[in-house]
This record gives sequence, structure tokens and C-alpha cells, in this order.
Amino acid sequence: MSHAYEPARVVALLRTLAERTGGPEGSRRLAWTPEWLKARALLRESVAGLPVTVSEDEAGNLWVVLAGDSPRTLVVGSHLDSVPKGGWLDGALGVMAGVELLRAYAQGPRPPITLALVDWADEEGARFGRSLFGSAACVGTLDLDTLRGLADKEGQKLPEVLKGYGVELDRLEGARARMRDVAAYAEVHIEQGPVLESMGKGICTVTGTKGIERERLVFRGQAAHAGTMPMPMRRDSFRAAARFALEVAEIGARHEGVTTVGHAQCWPGVVTAVAGETRITLDMRHIDATHLAAMFAEAQDAAARAAAAEGCTVTWEHIFRIPPMPFHPLLLDAARQSVREVEGHDVALPSGALHDASEMARQVPTVMIFSSSIGGLSHTREEDTPEAHLCMAADAFYRTCARIVTLVADGALA
Amino acid sequence: MSHAYEPARVVALLRTLAERTGGPEGSRRLAWTPEWLKARALLRESVAGLPVTVSEDEAGNLWVVLAGDSPRTLVVGSHLDSVPKGGWLDGALGVMAGVELLRAYAQGPRPPITLALVDWADEEGARFGRSLFGSAACVGTLDLDTLRGLADKEGQKLPEVLKGYGVELDRLEGARARMRDVAAYAEVHIEQGPVLESMGKGICTVTGTKGIERERLVFRGQAAHAGTMPMPMRRDSFRAAARFALEVAEIGARHEGVTTVGHAQCWPGVVTAVAGETRITLDMRHIDATHLAAMFAEAQDAAARAAAAEGCTVTWEHIFRIPPMPFHPLLLDAARQSVREVEGHDVALPSGALHDASEMARQVPTVMIFSSSIGGLSHTREEDTPEAHLCMAADAFYRTCARIVTLVADGALA
Repeated sequence: MSHAYEPARVVALLRTLAERTGGPEGSRRLAWTPEWLKARALLRESVAGLPVTVSEDEAGNLWVVLAGDSPRTLVVGSHLDSVPKGGWLDGALGVMAGVELLRAYAQGPRPPITLALVDWADEEGARFGRSLFGSAACVGTLDLDTLRGLADKEGQKLPEVLKGYGVELDRLEGARARMRDVAAYAEVHIEQGPVLESMGKGICTVTGTKGIERERLVFRGQAAHAGTMPMPMRRDSFRAAARFALEVAEIGARHEGVTTVGHAQCWPGVVTAVAGETRITLDMRHIDATHLAAMFAEAQDAAARAAAAEGCTVTWEHIFRIPPMPFHPLLLDAARQSVREVEGHDVALPSGALHDASEMARQVPTVMIFSSSIGGLSHTREEDTPEAHLCMAADAFYRTCARIVTLVADGALA
Repeated sequence: MSHAYEPARVVALLRTLAERTGGPEGSRRLAWTPEWLKARALLRESVAGLPVTVSEDEAGNLWVVLAGDSPRTLVVGSHLDSVPKGGWLDGALGVMAGVELLRAYAQGPRPPITLALVDWADEEGARFGRSLFGSAACVGTLDLDTLRGLADKEGQKLPEVLKGYGVELDRLEGARARMRDVAAYAEVHIEQGPVLESMGKGICTVTGTKGIERERLVFRGQAAHAGTMPMPMRRDSFRAAARFALEVAEIGARHEGVTTVGHAQCWPGVVTAVAGETRITLDMRHIDATHLAAMFAEAQDAAARAAAAEGCTVTWEHIFRIPPMPFHPLLLDAARQSVREVEGHDVALPSGALHDASEMARQVPTVMIFSSSIGGLSHTREEDTPEAHLCMAADAFYRTCARIVTLVADGALA
């Protein structure tokens, strides 16, 4: 830990990025747009004087590599792309903290292992709907047939747009070679939630990313005239959905997970008719697979009871599923020690949001550090974090990386 | 009651109408279309041999008048227009029962008062959204400025379309002259609900049309990430709306009225976000104004409590209001006696749906007779009624009209 890692430089880089790619409506670094390339140009500029090699892989991920004594590599990273009208920190914090990591190590003696910073391509999936694009390409979890069918709101197809940025779907597979020497992965990110702030803390260790079950539920009853169908004879699908929404919230709270009904649509959906059909979306998350499975079973039971109570039926349509990704025990120890040194506590939280770390954790030991988020806000121009917390997060991230370098060099992760 | 009123002729006319203007998808008698004119052509044809005068008023209502000794007039009627893909009975039953009434009276001696059948224009409002058009024009409750702004889905404006059918908004006022000698109004209609069927009855007296309160409720909380916002910290507008929907159903049931939440829309409305805003529609109906007012007050209280329970706020936006329209006591007696004669019971129900009778009841003594509806279905090609019930309804309607003729002739309604 003898190198001169300067957290203030991370904040300075973030502010420069915001000046160049932000604006009154928020960040504009949508992946596969000229604005995104402007952000990447700043990244290239900021490592220009360092003894590093810069390259892009077949998935459009930008790699900055500082060679060490061993080809075994600690990868750090996050993403410069943002949602439209997004915040200045989401993704960018992790990339700029990585720039400072390389700068600090480049000042000192040649490191025992190789260090690589990656700016993952299209983490947000804001244009084509496929998030974690670049990291999923590297670990091989992308489905090419699905990708070929994706288009943006203007009807532009993903394969054509990506081709304009040097990414060809038929060659995506090649990105997996980048994983060959990877020994560990670390990422620092804003929490994007209100928990640290509510605890009065600036940073914490992240224990893993929560598993997700996403489903569409269709409650079916009988459409009827709002004036002529007596209350006791109704089969009201919206009432069934309402019962379920309240019950599933209790299931989430009981398991200390989260459950969300964020969308509802009634048919015929007019003021003068009892809803014959109501569709809702359900998103359930938990860091523990056993709890998540129990929540799913209880939700199915609750839906069946809610439907029956209103004389309706319910069917489930699967949307998306990812298992919980608990991080690596030794890397968690490294992160906890670092957080304790920097802020004097052992707070460790699961991440409710997915990150590129969720993909990397499938294949290599992984860990994350969170900074707080003011008001829990993200994906909006109001997204912010006290500067002191950003600096603590960068500091804890650096210390964690230094510990991981030692673990890898010592063969502890082999 | 000496004239030869033949209910079977009413059913035969309805079947002819269905042959000419129905089809595999249901009725196509949308107002202000050529198909609607085809239906009216059948009406003109069916009264062609009678000693009546046929004319259209300034609102497009079609009048068939059988002059009596006195200009004082009993008006009977309903509407030939239907919703798209509608049923064969809604509105048409009342018109065809009226044709048979005129035919029966035309067979006998000159009646003591004048009898008029009216086919009201655009009862459904299915194309421009303004129902009860023709009857509202006659009683003067249309708002011209609102009408001028209405357009159909294709963007065609109401004033231009109606002009093509001889109706000019600037001359609508003239239709009110038709009310000058009107002494009473009677209408026979299908129930469009399941109550008579559930009671094992074919017909009943209608006590009036229910009052309606239609509102839009906007619950506002805080949009948040479905993964990072803990359950206890959420301000979930959809949960607030769900609580309200269940509570307002209980309010409807408790008052023996009806309350319906038929439409819901969440913002941002995606699977991954807690809904920051949820809009729902509310329709409440009751035959008694005191109960309706109490339901409204209780609903406002329930909405405030539901919002508060989820850390949300709620605002109300008024959509539509019509007071209960109780029918005339002497005409109700006439209808009750007739129903008793025909089916041997005293069942009397309020109408949950609006009818042209709701407009007429504002100005003249009014009453209605219902036939049952199979499964309570209407506004669909499945709409149907046992033929025996149609005949009983026509019979009871005729007997009621005969009683009203006597009441008017005797000056009992003056």
C-alpha cells in the first residue's frame, strides 16, 4: 500500500467527464452513440502517459492493461455508458477509480501480477434492452439469436448499429479470450439505493448481487358493465391483482428481500367496465437462493388465493431469471478490512441492482465496494454522492485491490 | 286494453333487423353510418302502412306520431344505434315494441291522446364519446362547445360528420320544441345485467336510473429501483391504489351500490421500478342520492387513508356526474300492475346503466320495463334474452302504456 493513490483525482476525473458529456438534463453517454465515444476519449486521454496498452475486444469493451511480473490478472472496471438523462456517477465512478489505480501502480515498482481496467460496453442496455452486454460477452452468456432480433425505438437493428462501432456479432465469441488469465475482479459503484445514507454511512462492502425472478401475471375474471353487475356477482380481475400486490409486498418484507409490482394493465380498461383481465409485472429479488425460491413459492400461492377470492384465474409468464451471485469469501475479507480501515465499520450489504460484477462472479472471484447515494436516487440527473464518500469509496477500493494483488500473487485464489 | 298487441311481431321485427344489420361479429348499427340508416329504413318500412307521420328533428331523432284526440303525448322509444360488434336487442327492443304499440293502437278507435315513437339518435356515443345525444338534445342538456371539440378515432370531427346526416349543431336547440306536448315517457329495454336471471324472473319494473360519480384518482409516491429500495422505505403508489381498490369495493357492497376501478396506469410502468405514480378510474353508482353522496365521502376518506398507509398522496380529477333519476310514482304503479299481470310478481329494480329515459325523466313522468339478459351480457354479439321474456316484456310494456294513456287522458299527470 505504498503507492500514491489519490482519491481526489478520481473525483476530478468524474467532474471532467460530467463537463464533457453531461448537461442540464443529465448524462448523455448512451452506448453506441458519439457521446459515448467522447467519454471513452477522456478515458484514453487520462491513461495516455502511463506504461499501459489500450485495446478493444470483439464485444466493444475497452481494456487498459498494466503488465506485471505474472500474466495472472486482477481486472477492475465498470462502465462509462449511461441511461439517457442519467447521473454523473453510475458506472463512471468505477472506471475513473480504475484509472487512478493504474496510475498509482505505474508510479511504483512493476507489480507482481498484471492489472487491467475494463470499460464494459453497454452495461445499461438502455437502447436495445440487453443490459450487461460487454461483460456477458466475455463470460459467454449472451444469446446471439436474441441479439439479432433486437432493435431500438427508431427500429434500428442492434447488429447494424454495433457494426458501426466495430462490433460484429459473429465475432463476439472472441471476447472470451480476455478471461484466460483473469484471477479476480473488483468494482466500485454507487449504491443506487438509500440504505447506506439511512445508516449514516459513506461506504460498505457488497456481499453479492441479488438473484432476480421476473414474471408477468395474468388475472382473468369476467368483463362486465360497471353499472349493471352487482358487487357480489363480480369476477373482478383488478381486485384479484390488487389483493396479490398487497400480499406479495408482505412476502418481500417478511423475507427481507424485495418484491415489486411496477406495471398494471386492465382490459377492457375503461371507466365503465369491470376489468375482465388484468396483467401485472412482478420483480422479486433476494441475495439468498433459498429465500428467493421460498418467495417464489409463496407468491404463487398468494396469487392463486387472490384469484380464487375474486372468482378469477391466474397464469404466470416467465420474463427473466438470474441466480444470486454471492462474492468470494477471501475477497469479501479484503473488502471488509479495507472498509474498516477507511470508515471504521463492518457494514456489508447485498446489491439489489445487477452489475457487470454479476457476470464476472460467474467465472472468477469477485467483490464490490459501494459508496452511498443521496436520497437513493440514480438513473436521473439528481443522482449524487457526498464527495467525501466518493473519496472513501475510491480509497477502500484501492486498498481492496492491493490486498487482492497480494492474494493472487501468493496463489491464494488458485 | 282491447287492441291486438302481438308481442311475437316485436320479436319478428328484431330478427329482421338482425338479419339486415347484424353478422358473425355482432350488430353494426353505429350511429352516423350507412348501416344505421339501413336500420332506420326498416323502421320506416315497418310503419309504412299506418296512419302516422314520420319526421326527423334537428338532433337527428326519428319520430313516428299517431295523432289522438288530444295533442298531449305519450312518447315511447329507445335507440336503433348499437356499439360496434354489439348485440341484437340493446335499444332495438324498445323501438320495435314501440312500432307494435302504434300498430295496435292504429287498429282501434282514435286514441284519446297522441302516441309518439322516437328512435333516439346516438344513444351509445360509441364513436364520439357523447352518449344519450338525441334525448339530451331534446331536454337541452347538451354542451355545444364540448360537442364542437369531439372527434372519432380517425380524427373526423363530430360537427362535420353530423352535417352529412342533416344535423347542424347551431340548429340543435330546435329539437326542444318536440317536448312541448309530451305528458309521459315509457321505454322497454333489456336489463344488461344478471339480476333478473339470478332471480329466475323474465321481466320487472325499473324504479329509476342510478346516479353516477366518475372520477380519476392519482396516487403519487416515489419512483424507485425495484432492486435497491428496501420494502420499508418505499412510497409505492401502486400499493396505495391497490389498498383503495379493495376498500372501495367494500364501500359499494356495504351501500348495496356499485363501485368499479376499471383502469390503472403506472409510471414509469416498468418491471424494474417501483411505481412513482398510479392513475386509476373510479365509477360509483347508486339509485339513492344520499347513499351516493355517502359513498363518495367514504371513498375520499378511504383514498386518503390508502395513500397515507403507503407514504403517498392522492388527488381527484372529476370526470362525470349525473344524479339518480327516480321514475314517476303513478307510472311505477302502472308498470308494477302490468308486470304482476304478465309474470305474477312485484319485482322492481333500479337500472345500473343510463338510458334515454334518464334524460327524459328530468322533464316528464317516466318509467321503464326490463327484460332479463342471459348471463347479464350486453354490448357483445353474445347478448341474448329468452324469446318468452322478450314477449313478456313487450306485453308488460304495452299494458303499462295503455295505463299511462288513461292517466294522461284523465289529467292525472297534469
